[in-house]
Amino acid sequence: MARFIKKHKQEIGLSPDALYFRGKKKIDKVLLRVIDFDAENLEENPVHTVKEVLKYKDKNTVTWFNVDGLHNEAIMEEIAQGFKLDRLVLAEVMDTQSRAKVHEYANCIYISIKMLQQDEQTNTISVENLSLIVTETVLISFQEKKGDVFEPVRERIRNQKKRIRNSGTDYLAFALLDIVVDNYIYIISILGDKIEDLESNLLLNPNQKVIDEINAYKRELNFLRKNINPAKEMILTLSKMDSDFITEGSYIHYKELLDNINQAMESSDSYREILSDQLNIYHTTISSRLNDIMKFLTVFSVIFIPLTFIAGIYGTNFDVVPELHYKYSYFIMWGVMIVLVVVMLIYFKRKKWL
Amino acid sequence: MARFIKKHKQEIGLSPDALYFRGKKKIDKVLLRVIDFDAENLEENPVHTVKEVLKYKDKNTVTWFNVDGLHNEAIMEEIAQGFKLDRLVLAEVMDTQSRAKVHEYANCIYISIKMLQQDEQTNTISVENLSLIVTETVLISFQEKKGDVFEPVRERIRNQKKRIRNSGTDYLAFALLDIVVDNYIYIISILGDKIEDLESNLLLNPNQKVIDEINAYKRELNFLRKNINPAKEMILTLSKMDSDFITEGSYIHYKELLDNINQAMESSDSYREILSDQLNIYHTTISSRLNDIMKFLTVFSVIFIPLTFIAGIYGTNFDVVPELHYKYSYFIMWGVMIVLVVVMLIYFKRKKWL
Amino acid sequence: MARFIKKHKQEIGLSPDALYFRGKKKIDKVLLRVIDFDAENLEENPVHTVKEVLKYKDKNTVTWFNVDGLHNEAIMEEIAQGFKLDRLVLAEVMDTQSRAKVHEYANCIYISIKMLQQDEQTNTISVENLSLIVTETVLISFQEKKGDVFEPVRERIRNQKKRIRNSGTDYLAFALLDIVVDNYIYIISILGDKIEDLESNLLLNPNQKVIDEINAYKRELNFLRKNINPAKEMILTLSKMDSDFITEGSYIHYKELLDNINQAMESSDSYREILSDQLNIYHTTISSRLNDIMKFLTVFSVIFIPLTFIAGIYGTNFDVVPELHYKYSYFIMWGVMIVLVVVMLIYFKRKKWL
Amino acid sequence: MARFIKKHKQEIGLSPDALYFRGKKKIDKVLLRVIDFDAENLEENPVHTVKEVLKYKDKNTVTWFNVDGLHNEAIMEEIAQGFKLDRLVLAEVMDTQSRAKVHEYANCIYISIKMLQQDEQTNTISVENLSLIVTETVLISFQEKKGDVFEPVRERIRNQKKRIRNSGTDYLAFALLDIVVDNYIYIISILGDKIEDLESNLLLNPNQKVIDEINAYKRELNFLRKNINPAKEMILTLSKMDSDFITEGSYIHYKELLDNINQAMESSDSYREILSDQLNIYHTTISSRLNDIMKFLTVFSVIFIPLTFIAGIYGTNFDVVPELHYKYSYFIMWGVMIVLVVVMLIYFKRKKWL
Amino acid sequence: MARFIKKHKQEIGLSPDALYFRGKKKIDKVLLRVIDFDAENLEENPVHTVKEVLKYKDKNTVTWFNVDGLHNEAIMEEIAQGFKLDRLVLAEVMDTQSRAKVHEYANCIYISIKMLQQDEQTNTISVENLSLIVTETVLISFQEKKGDVFEPVRERIRNQKKRIRNSGTDYLAFALLDIVVDNYIYIISILGDKIEDLESNLLLNPNQKVIDEINAYKRELNFLRKNINPAKEMILTLSKMDSDFITEGSYIHYKELLDNINQAMESSDSYREILSDQLNIYHTTISSRLNDIMKFLTVFSVIFIPLTFIAGIYGTNFDVVPELHYKYSYFIMWGVMIVLVVVMLIYFKRKKWL
Repeated sequence: MARFIKKHKQEIGLSPDALYFRGKKKIDKVLLRVIDFDAENLEENPVHTVKEVLKYKDKNTVTWFNVDGLHNEAIMEEIAQGFKLDRLVLAEVMDTQSRAKVHEYANCIYISIKMLQQDEQTNTISVENLSLIVTETVLISFQEKKGDVFEPVRERIRNQKKRIRNSGTDYLAFALLDIVVDNYIYIISILGDKIEDLESNLLLNPNQKVIDEINAYKRELNFLRKNINPAKEMILTLSKMDSDFITEGSYIHYKELLDNINQAMESSDSYREILSDQLNIYHTTISSRLNDIMKFLTVFSVIFIPLTFIAGIYGTNFDVVPELHYKYSYFIMWGVMIVLVVVMLIYFKRKKWL
Repeated sequence: MARFIKKHKQEIGLSPDALYFRGKKKIDKVLLRVIDFDAENLEENPVHTVKEVLKYKDKNTVTWFNVDGLHNEAIMEEIAQGFKLDRLVLAEVMDTQSRAKVHEYANCIYISIKMLQQDEQTNTISVENLSLIVTETVLISFQEKKGDVFEPVRERIRNQKKRIRNSGTDYLAFALLDIVVDNYIYIISILGDKIEDLESNLLLNPNQKVIDEINAYKRELNFLRKNINPAKEMILTLSKMDSDFITEGSYIHYKELLDNINQAMESSDSYREILSDQLNIYHTTISSRLNDIMKFLTVFSVIFIPLTFIAGIYGTNFDVVPELHYKYSYFIMWGVMIVLVVVMLIYFKRKKWL
Repeated sequence: MARFIKKHKQEIGLSPDALYFRGKKKIDKVLLRVIDFDAENLEENPVHTVKEVLKYKDKNTVTWFNVDGLHNEAIMEEIAQGFKLDRLVLAEVMDTQSRAKVHEYANCIYISIKMLQQDEQTNTISVENLSLIVTETVLISFQEKKGDVFEPVRERIRNQKKRIRNSGTDYLAFALLDIVVDNYIYIISILGDKIEDLESNLLLNPNQKVIDEINAYKRELNFLRKNINPAKEMILTLSKMDSDFITEGSYIHYKELLDNINQAMESSDSYREILSDQLNIYHTTISSRLNDIMKFLTVFSVIFIPLTFIAGIYGTNFDVVPELHYKYSYFIMWGVMIVLVVVMLIYFKRKKWL
Repeated sequence: MARFIKKHKQEIGLSPDALYFRGKKKIDKVLLRVIDFDAENLEENPVHTVKEVLKYKDKNTVTWFNVDGLHNEAIMEEIAQGFKLDRLVLAEVMDTQSRAKVHEYANCIYISIKMLQQDEQTNTISVENLSLIVTETVLISFQEKKGDVFEPVRERIRNQKKRIRNSGTDYLAFALLDIVVDNYIYIISILGDKIEDLESNLLLNPNQKVIDEINAYKRELNFLRKNINPAKEMILTLSKMDSDFITEGSYIHYKELLDNINQAMESSDSYREILSDQLNIYHTTISSRLNDIMKFLTVFSVIFIPLTFIAGIYGTNFDVVPELHYKYSYFIMWGVMIVLVVVMLIYFKRKKWL
Repeated sequence: MARFIKKHKQEIGLSPDALYFRGKKKIDKVLLRVIDFDAENLEENPVHTVKEVLKYKDKNTVTWFNVDGLHNEAIMEEIAQGFKLDRLVLAEVMDTQSRAKVHEYANCIYISIKMLQQDEQTNTISVENLSLIVTETVLISFQEKKGDVFEPVRERIRNQKKRIRNSGTDYLAFALLDIVVDNYIYIISILGDKIEDLESNLLLNPNQKVIDEINAYKRELNFLRKNINPAKEMILTLSKMDSDFITEGSYIHYKELLDNINQAMESSDSYREILSDQLNIYHTTISSRLNDIMKFLTVFSVIFIPLTFIAGIYGTNFDVVPELHYKYSYFIMWGVMIVLVVVMLIYFKRKKWL
């Protein structure tokens, strides 16, 4: 199946605000969860309907409303109406195929980014879409399945002394994006470890398995870059955006985020170059090894060719072959052959062919 | 015939407003069709002359006037005069060779884009030029032949509840462009499927057919990119254009379109890299296979060379060859030969030449 | 001789306004020609001296003054003084080596562009410098030799109904540049035809001639791009220039011109990629063909090696070789050999070495 | 271990102002050092606590406070509070993994850059993070370990006549960055020496060692560029920054710095190209050498093949082989063989195969 | 020695205004020379001390003060003080290692550029640094050694009618830069001649010498580009600079200069591509030639293999080999062999292996 882009015939020509789920359903029931906090208070509740969340909407606190599962159109509809969001925003949330982006709407910012995770079993990188809707007091996050990497943020929220308790939804959004980007770097650094480990293997034991690994890593790096690059563009846009929903103090964080993701891209570039160097080294090693073998074998054959010829000469049945009848002819032949071999060996040695 | 650019001698030096059809005639008779609508009313009529359409021109409704077939200069002339358009615009419509573009005129915007379609039979991508003229109340679309991909838009228009019924010509233009771009993505995703399927074939059974396929896909991707890239530029221009004919609310849609087409380009880049990786893998596989064969054959020959030499020695007709007369000489020779073979096999095994 | 850049020692350090002819003299006598027109009137005269032209200078009509041959300094001097042009402008005209450019002077715009023509005999592309000096009422064009491609423009001028009769010198300049660019596209499209034709030849009959052709086309494309790229930059500058000598209505034409030249560049890019793909295909085909031959020959040799060895064994002259004396030994030897060959053939077949 | 990027699982999701040391501890005890000066006075003291330094803070002199060792959170905390710096700044200081950057804060500029040093023993380039915090009167520099390259700056400070005594913290920061960049150039110039020395070796004695060296240099250049490129961006930002902490007169210095680092990048580009040329030359030399050997050996074998065949013919035991019984047959055979060899040698010579 | 960048340990950390000579001393005694002129008067004197020059400083004429030799700090000091220049400017003059640049100071513009010269003996390009200090009435030029390429400018100055006599120091600076750039073009055009001449040689006689030449030209082109590229940037800056020292009328000249240097860069690009094509052609030719040889030799061997086998068969000493005793066996054997050879030759011919 096409890994980089997917489009089903029936999706062509849909209205841009159609609440149509594009992607693979990864969870059965949609899960809702709310954390509401300001500097002093903290409320953390599992909720079952969108309605329960709406009461937080007009409070002056920061409300983080997380939704796991995107396939339920009814719930999306409820959210759109409850939070007075354009249906376009929710339509974008339901399209898990789109690239990372940030769109500014009248009463919210819509952010989407790919969360990447190393799948330990298949050794490939799995991808999940994260959508954030940032309004003045509410941050709604949408994930494709249960279980996430945001526990450290929740921990920081629970800890009253942390900066996050005194900041708004824009800082919370930053904290979530920060973890996503940290995971990019973590994955690249793991991949980088493996790539650098490969090097020693490459010279010691250059075989088909190594080359398959190199190609697999190349593919993973490609896939990573394909996902990180739009994220970089998105964060660049965000860090330059002049929006009411981003407070002055947050820009420094978004800039820092940009530095991090730039570093991730540059490192993945470096690893790409290393991989291509490794491929070259592999080919050089293999071919020089083959050359050595062929050279040795050829030289070996060449040495025997005149010897066999001489033996052939004295295997002829001519009536008159004077040499055949001297007493020491046979031994002289051996002598001549040995001298020939020695001369050839010296010659080849001098020419550095051996 | 040159697939990427065409120019006939007689086209050189034509006046830019000459209504001269440049392209291949794909339909005999020009077909006209009109849909006129606003939030409440809908009128959908086949029409036979341009005159019948003009009555919609000054109504406040949105009029979608579709023209199939571009070769009839008289009709183009009528449209130019009927809708008070610069002849340059119609001249541009008639040039099916030009790249995707958007030009702003005093009383309209001219948009052209390539519609791509996978031709199932020849397995190549066919291309058709779509031109849109957007005025305040009328959208005129020009296609090269009958039959199009815009049925979903007509369906949405017929459905009173859809956003399209409440929007202007700019949104209608977006809806058409959206389908064109969706088709780009669809074609790339189909091509991508095929390319990714190739991979397993490549390792199992690397033959000339695979390489021909890779080259064919490369050519198709090239052709795609050659057409999509100008479309991307065009949509970028459109999304930044400060025109009276585009309402504030439409920009978000054009931006979304830009995201989509960017994704298409990036994916095609990824597939291009995959194809070039596949080519490399193919060559590596083929050459390592050949190397193995040659190594084996050479080693095989080398083993027999000293044996044949020994046999040659004892085929000589010297009067005095002492070994010939011992009773077990022949068997000793066999023994020596077998030992030699074993020693060589061990040596080659150790050197990993076998 | 250096095709891409030329500089003679004596040209170093010349004053920038020195009227020094840099190039190859392609015509003996300088030819002058004037067309003077407005919407109603048209005058078309061969003239012999610059003085005859000056009378048109202050008329309100559009005057197109064409000069064939650049080597006559006296005439250049006369033009400079007659039309009150900076000597720098004429010095630029006389430098046929320079790249396409547009320079704005106080009372004129100076435009230079390379005219390319397919030389049917040598099958290479010949180049000629075209310089245009655009003032408010006069357009002076300079060509290196007699005979040009501008006849269609003259035809349009003679035809009273054409747009060109109602426009100024800027539109006339556009019309000339348009033909030059059309010729670029024409040449690329011819080259493209040849390149695409090559493809079938490539697979059927890959020989040195094909590769020479590919390299020749590559060189021609390079040469084309080297000349078209500055023209593109020049037209881009022109289309953004805020000059008194370009009327508002002309910008749309210059933009269209830019689209065309962009398309030319993109197509030449595509053909470049195709050529480099073709080179790869050629090498792959050639090397896979060679591999097949070598594999076959090696397998053939390998089959005979053990047979010859066996024959060698029974050619030895040992006193005791029991096999020699059995009645059917010779026939058994033949049998063993045939079995051996069959076994080896089956083995090689299975291994897909044959 | 991944050399280009590192991320530990426990670092994911940390608050951006967490004073968490990311890196390898290279020193046990944090060392502090202060130089305080203006045009007339100079005070240079080792200090043991941050508190001792604070007294300089509000003096009008320039204070250079150097900190060796970044792992002590308590000291960082003290510095943050003592100099009233945002905790974010100190958090950035403690992250030795980040790329070179400059961030503007309300009351300071934060600059970080990588110091590179040729490690003579391992022949690789070691890297150390340098952070500078520039306020109006204080420059705080942070290094990872004891011992630095800034002694020349200290010397210039001690010398009353130097420009540095009359300038502010911005000039001092420039002086430090200047040394860092000078070291970049120094390292590249040393590497460049080695690379250019390689060339002669390459043609004389192309062996595996040379290729390993080329690959090692390539890796080092890659590593260099990976570190210098962000530094370049950083200095570019700095040279365009409109900050209160940089006086008008300093911009010329930052521009000069930018020129230097650009030159460093360009030179490293040149060396990269040279390395890749050298790789090509190596492969060409090796393969042409191998070709010569194989050609010679093959020609050698080919010469013996017909000779051995002739000898074989007269080794047959047919009852009737007339040639066998002529008296001079044996010698004629020798003659024929010699003639054959000569003919073949001449043929091969003519064909330039020998 | 590193050709692209040089840095000595002792240069690290020098104050930016240290008058420290960085480079190779190419002249023993510093030579001074003055030309002072305006439209009417001209004074041209050899001078021995800086003091003699100062009298021209405040005159309203244009003074061109040329200094050959940069190693004398005392003279530099004198110039700095005499002309009231920032010591930074003179420090820059003394650094011959820096790249081409332009820096604007309060009372002057500092320009540096590399003068390139084809060294006829070593066939490499030698480089010399040219520094210009442009003030309102004085142009000071610094060269590393005696003898220059500026004689044509002096000639133009001596000739009262030339534009240079009516222009200021900015035009004089342009005239000098113009000659430097003309020399760039001259060198490239000479190199280009050689490269294009190579082509015919390449196909006729592809040997190691040709490839060494290609690599040498590549290196020279690289070196050229390394020096011309910063010059291009410098001239671009100059042509956009809004400085008091450049009069309105000079910008057209700087723009022209930019065109020229752009053309130089583009041509060197073209030649680079040609060189890389030539390398490819060389490799293709060489490898196709080798393939032909190997194919011929292999086919030759293969033909003898079955013949030798047959001879071997009838060399066996079996008691019963019926064929041995027929009278015509020997001749039949010859017949069979000849038939075999003919069949094989036909087969190989058909397969196009010969």
